[in-house]
Amino acid sequence: MEETFIPFQGIKNDLRARLLCYKQDWTGGIRAGIRILAPTTYIFFASAIPVISFGEQLERNTDGVLTAVQALSSTALCGVIHSIFGGQPLLILGVAEPTVLMYTFMFNFAKDRKELGQHLFLPWTGWVCVWTALLLFLLAILGACSIINRFTRLAGELFGLLIAMLFMQQAIRGVVEEFGIPQRENPNQAALLPSWRFGNGMFAMVLSFGLLLTALKSRKARSWRYGTGWLRGFIADYGVPLMVLVWTAISYIPVRHVPQGIPRRLFSPNPWSPGAYTNWTVVKEMMNVPPLYIVGAFIPATMIAVLYYFDHSVASQLAQQKEFNLKKPSSYHHDLLLLGFLTLLCGLIGIPPANGVIPQSPMHTKSLATLKHQLLRNKLSSTARQSMKKNSNLRQLYWNMQEAYNEMQTPLAFQIPPTLGLRELKESTVQLATSTGYIDAPVDETIFDVDKDIDDLLPVEVKEQRLSNLLQSLMVGSCVGAMPLLKKIPTSVLWGYFAFMAIESLPGNQFWERILLLFTAPSRRYKVLEKYHATFIEMVPFKTIASFTVFQIGYLLMCFGITWTPIAGVLFPLLIMLLVPVRQYILSRFFKWAHLQDLDAAEYEEAPAVVTYNMSSFQGEDIEGRRVNIDDDGVILDGVITRSRGEIRRTLSPKMIGSTPASLEAIRPPPAFSPRVGFSPRPGEPRPSPSPRLNVKEVEESHSYSHSAEPTTLGKSSQGPS
Amino acid sequence: MEETFIPFQGIKNDLRARLLCYKQDWTGGIRAGIRILAPTTYIFFASAIPVISFGEQLERNTDGVLTAVQALSSTALCGVIHSIFGGQPLLILGVAEPTVLMYTFMFNFAKDRKELGQHLFLPWTGWVCVWTALLLFLLAILGACSIINRFTRLAGELFGLLIAMLFMQQAIRGVVEEFGIPQRENPNQAALLPSWRFGNGMFAMVLSFGLLLTALKSRKARSWRYGTGWLRGFIADYGVPLMVLVWTAISYIPVRHVPQGIPRRLFSPNPWSPGAYTNWTVVKEMMNVPPLYIVGAFIPATMIAVLYYFDHSVASQLAQQKEFNLKKPSSYHHDLLLLGFLTLLCGLIGIPPANGVIPQSPMHTKSLATLKHQLLRNKLSSTARQSMKKNSNLRQLYWNMQEAYNEMQTPLAFQIPPTLGLRELKESTVQLATSTGYIDAPVDETIFDVDKDIDDLLPVEVKEQRLSNLLQSLMVGSCVGAMPLLKKIPTSVLWGYFAFMAIESLPGNQFWERILLLFTAPSRRYKVLEKYHATFIEMVPFKTIASFTVFQIGYLLMCFGITWTPIAGVLFPLLIMLLVPVRQYILSRFFKWAHLQDLDAAEYEEAPAVVTYNMSSFQGEDIEGRRVNIDDDGVILDGVITRSRGEIRRTLSPKMIGSTPASLEAIRPPPAFSPRVGFSPRPGEPRPSPSPRLNVKEVEESHSYSHSAEPTTLGKSSQGPS
Repeated sequence: MEETFIPFQGIKNDLRARLLCYKQDWTGGIRAGIRILAPTTYIFFASAIPVISFGEQLERNTDGVLTAVQALSSTALCGVIHSIFGGQPLLILGVAEPTVLMYTFMFNFAKDRKELGQHLFLPWTGWVCVWTALLLFLLAILGACSIINRFTRLAGELFGLLIAMLFMQQAIRGVVEEFGIPQRENPNQAALLPSWRFGNGMFAMVLSFGLLLTALKSRKARSWRYGTGWLRGFIADYGVPLMVLVWTAISYIPVRHVPQGIPRRLFSPNPWSPGAYTNWTVVKEMMNVPPLYIVGAFIPATMIAVLYYFDHSVASQLAQQKEFNLKKPSSYHHDLLLLGFLTLLCGLIGIPPANGVIPQSPMHTKSLATLKHQLLRNKLSSTARQSMKKNSNLRQLYWNMQEAYNEMQTPLAFQIPPTLGLRELKESTVQLATSTGYIDAPVDETIFDVDKDIDDLLPVEVKEQRLSNLLQSLMVGSCVGAMPLLKKIPTSVLWGYFAFMAIESLPGNQFWERILLLFTAPSRRYKVLEKYHATFIEMVPFKTIASFTVFQIGYLLMCFGITWTPIAGVLFPLLIMLLVPVRQYILSRFFKWAHLQDLDAAEYEEAPAVVTYNMSSFQGEDIEGRRVNIDDDGVILDGVITRSRGEIRRTLSPKMIGSTPASLEAIRPPPAFSPRVGFSPRPGEPRPSPSPRLNVKEVEESHSYSHSAEPTTLGKSSQGPS
Repeated sequence: MEETFIPFQGIKNDLRARLLCYKQDWTGGIRAGIRILAPTTYIFFASAIPVISFGEQLERNTDGVLTAVQALSSTALCGVIHSIFGGQPLLILGVAEPTVLMYTFMFNFAKDRKELGQHLFLPWTGWVCVWTALLLFLLAILGACSIINRFTRLAGELFGLLIAMLFMQQAIRGVVEEFGIPQRENPNQAALLPSWRFGNGMFAMVLSFGLLLTALKSRKARSWRYGTGWLRGFIADYGVPLMVLVWTAISYIPVRHVPQGIPRRLFSPNPWSPGAYTNWTVVKEMMNVPPLYIVGAFIPATMIAVLYYFDHSVASQLAQQKEFNLKKPSSYHHDLLLLGFLTLLCGLIGIPPANGVIPQSPMHTKSLATLKHQLLRNKLSSTARQSMKKNSNLRQLYWNMQEAYNEMQTPLAFQIPPTLGLRELKESTVQLATSTGYIDAPVDETIFDVDKDIDDLLPVEVKEQRLSNLLQSLMVGSCVGAMPLLKKIPTSVLWGYFAFMAIESLPGNQFWERILLLFTAPSRRYKVLEKYHATFIEMVPFKTIASFTVFQIGYLLMCFGITWTPIAGVLFPLLIMLLVPVRQYILSRFFKWAHLQDLDAAEYEEAPAVVTYNMSSFQGEDIEGRRVNIDDDGVILDGVITRSRGEIRRTLSPKMIGSTPASLEAIRPPPAFSPRVGFSPRPGEPRPSPSPRLNVKEVEESHSYSHSAEPTTLGKSSQGPS
């Protein structure tokens, strides 16, 4: 995205770019078929459940003026509009904690003013929204989002972790409150006797931990040893919603002697209950607000504007991280403009506005990456099977697969055809096959094991479309009607779910990984490298990593602390935006540029490497490969291990693509890392685990890169032949 | 152990053999130093906690005639005597469930007879013990234990799993009972109101699951990424006792409003409370028992004798499985004789006798294997560091390490010096080093990474000594005095601990692994192979494995069912002993001999392979190694994978050694599987995971064994060069 501050320029660019793929956004989604439901339901729960509990919170804080009903309808309304007219359909909208805080502050302010009072609270917030909308229009038009480019991992990941902390805090507070007496309940009923409160609290612990543990396990189902592939897939896709149902069911088991209200369940008025509609007509009363307050509304408006501008953009950015290898363009300016309209709309009908949310938005992208992987997988394996039936040889096989793969690619006018993918894979394998005489033999399962090897062929790609977002918004909307059902969910399950979301959002967050690194025994740091492919461990001295991370932690805690202070709590985004100059002018003084690049801006640097890298690596292979083979295979293996060392730096970038997937089990490392794919064993035999294959690969690359990180070792290991 | 039925022959043999290493049994234990406390405390908890709860059960069933105090003292007394005069010090003695059942039956019988009544119950059991002792003497003298040889995995593992089921059943029943009203409590007290019972039950769930999960996690601490090695080691060694303390502490957190008796805690009279001593003088009253009953006591005596003969021997056998690679001889006959004396003693002082227990005994051996590994590790790494300081070359290094290793070996007069160990390791590595020119270069960390590589050098060995057993028995004894402290442990923690023991006893049980295999997706069965090195998967068609396992499951369930029937419940050992003829005459009709060997008697067959195997494999290596290297390394890797297939059978026996360790994280595969050890990278870098190295090794061995399992694949992979 180019950095432009010419009025309307940014919006124009966004529109032009997104319009090109608008049709494909829909067709692509529809072509995915039934499978689209997996990410949809996953995100539906992730966005509905928090909204409900925020709605409950909102209700307590506004004496029932606003309830979960309004929160849900706002989320649904904004979601639907954004998924249709929005620029970046990966972005998920919802009523978030900050909004709840702001509305709480405004309510407390309004209810004590006799000119406003509870009656004119909503009309007044209407005005606030009007102002906010205007400010957002300005920001969008003047291209304020261009600054997003300046947002490095530092800010984004810190914000992500902050949100995770807030979710976890909510979860813990929630479980603790299960032991106490809730507000707006009469403390004399049986369920609130000390004895039953104790029981309720303990039950809540069982339910919330039960949900948390089972939900986390179910996400890993694809890598389970047990059950058929279909079942594993189903559990991995729908496990989390399923667990919510299961634990809700379990919460109904204790009946004997146990009084009503244990465990406590969601509380919200039905949309058709009286008073639930009073707020839909505030627009008529907006004129009754005294002029002074209409003007005064500008002050909270600025805060909200800043808040939304920041939240919305960062959520969008985190949903489009480099690791996801997205094909379609971003659309920050346009989305901000749309957000303005949405805020205006919500204000006029008296419901709290929604904005882009974390961690749901990145979760959305991740789940779509899993989906895309599944689709590619099926397509390719069927192709492979067919051409194996026609017992074609390896070259034909890969040719067919390459074609199938290209078919699946999103054809975008303005974009270069996908060079990434199977091509260099094919080359390398075919090359090998030739040299071994496999090439003309018809391929069979021993040479190419469809089920396993396809996975290794596939790069990370995301099914970018609008359908999942639209559907999940509609589902959220349907919750308003399904309120009686939702009320059956125990609050404790809710808290477990909050904890689950907090934990789900951690993997792939490099800041988090660095925090873990601080507690990792030196001898085991290499494991981090294996798991997250984190280059910086190789490139940056540990001391530097540590000090950088400690600084970040300090900053994080500062932000977290601020969220506890009354009014300032809403302004923590400012603190995070402050990170941009801090990063640019202060950090750059204390850290070497190169180190900062590795720690903070790594992906920008290394993206290009993806393309060049494989090509170069294979020229080297053949000659070198033979050269090595002359000596005792001890040396090869020696090389496999030691030379690989120097390689890490080079081999990073492709790995980066596959790095986020550390969290999505379904996604394998990109093609560059399975050149032996043609020669893997049949199912039912021990197979080398990916990492050593990767080493084998690396040793070959190390030939094509004479400038290796540890020349000493390289020298040593090639002593043999010389 | 030779099969002899000449009177006293077996006992003589046992004594002769064990006397040779008796002194070393003590010195070895003492030389282990402070570290001996790790297995000691681990086993102390494993044997004390069940005894306490069995004691509680005994108290309920005998109207308080026998309590946890008697159970503990019996366990301590027998334990001490056995650890000093017993033959096999790995065997752990304790008052077990069957004994409790028998005493319950006898009590119910006695209390209704006016000639006996509650008063003469203990004197009468005294007579039962006398008869039992006599029968045990007979069995021991006539060499009944020789039959133990006939006990295959089938019986032993089935029994092991049955015990695990009983423990798990106890755990579940325990937690469920936490919701109910316990006996001998007056149901009017606050803590037993429905409301508090509910709370208590839920709290019990939290505590028991908390203990179970944390205890299981703590056992894996050595492989954690976090914390210093020392801390990880400490947690792995003492984590389980620690967790009992932690969760007991947690159980004291809720105080506000919560009445006494929540959570419920252990119940037992203090040894100094009146009435706790009445039973120590039964011998005086034994003459008051009417002669008819003295004779009649013979009937229960036979049952108990059979029971003990079986339990004791199988417990001893499971503690001496081939996988543990023990150096010292077994001592079934002598131990059975001693058990006779112990039973007599216990009978005369009116306490329930103790006998060899599962799963504690195998747990004991496992924990000692971990200990031995730690000791070897430290010794060798210090040696290695020293000689690296004197920058000696690889040959010298290994020479020094071999010496250090031999020092650590238990020198047994009658035994061949340990050929297993580092020797062939050294040879292979040195050989490699020579060919690569490493050999004369002074060794540095890049060539030999002390911390990591030593682990790979070490075979499984067990610190066989008497100290840990003696100490843990004394600790159990001290529990009698510490009763007031023990009473602080919540019963729910107890149930969690029962579940923990049940689960701890599963890994390494091939029967269990086969059950899991039935639920494993076909495409992932190879994973079982990787994890447990279970040959049968390669050697036996899945259908056969399945039918064999299903039969075993059926038999298991039958035994489990029988434990529920009143009196027959005690006789389930007979059902299991029945397996010996069933295996020999019936199963052999339905299954191929070869298959049965793989599934059931594997280790007998393959034990010899351990010795021959390594030697032979290295002659082959050199020539073959070169031959392979001529072709493109693609083939080597192909070979690495495919050829390894045929190898599995041969490579089993050494792997078997390393197989049980699947459960003990601390233990690495045996030396034969890390020939590249000399050339692994420095810490802080990705290292190939053991399994593929293992493959690499296997391909080399496969050359020395022309008769490979899958000639087809062998052919295919050597197509290239031809």
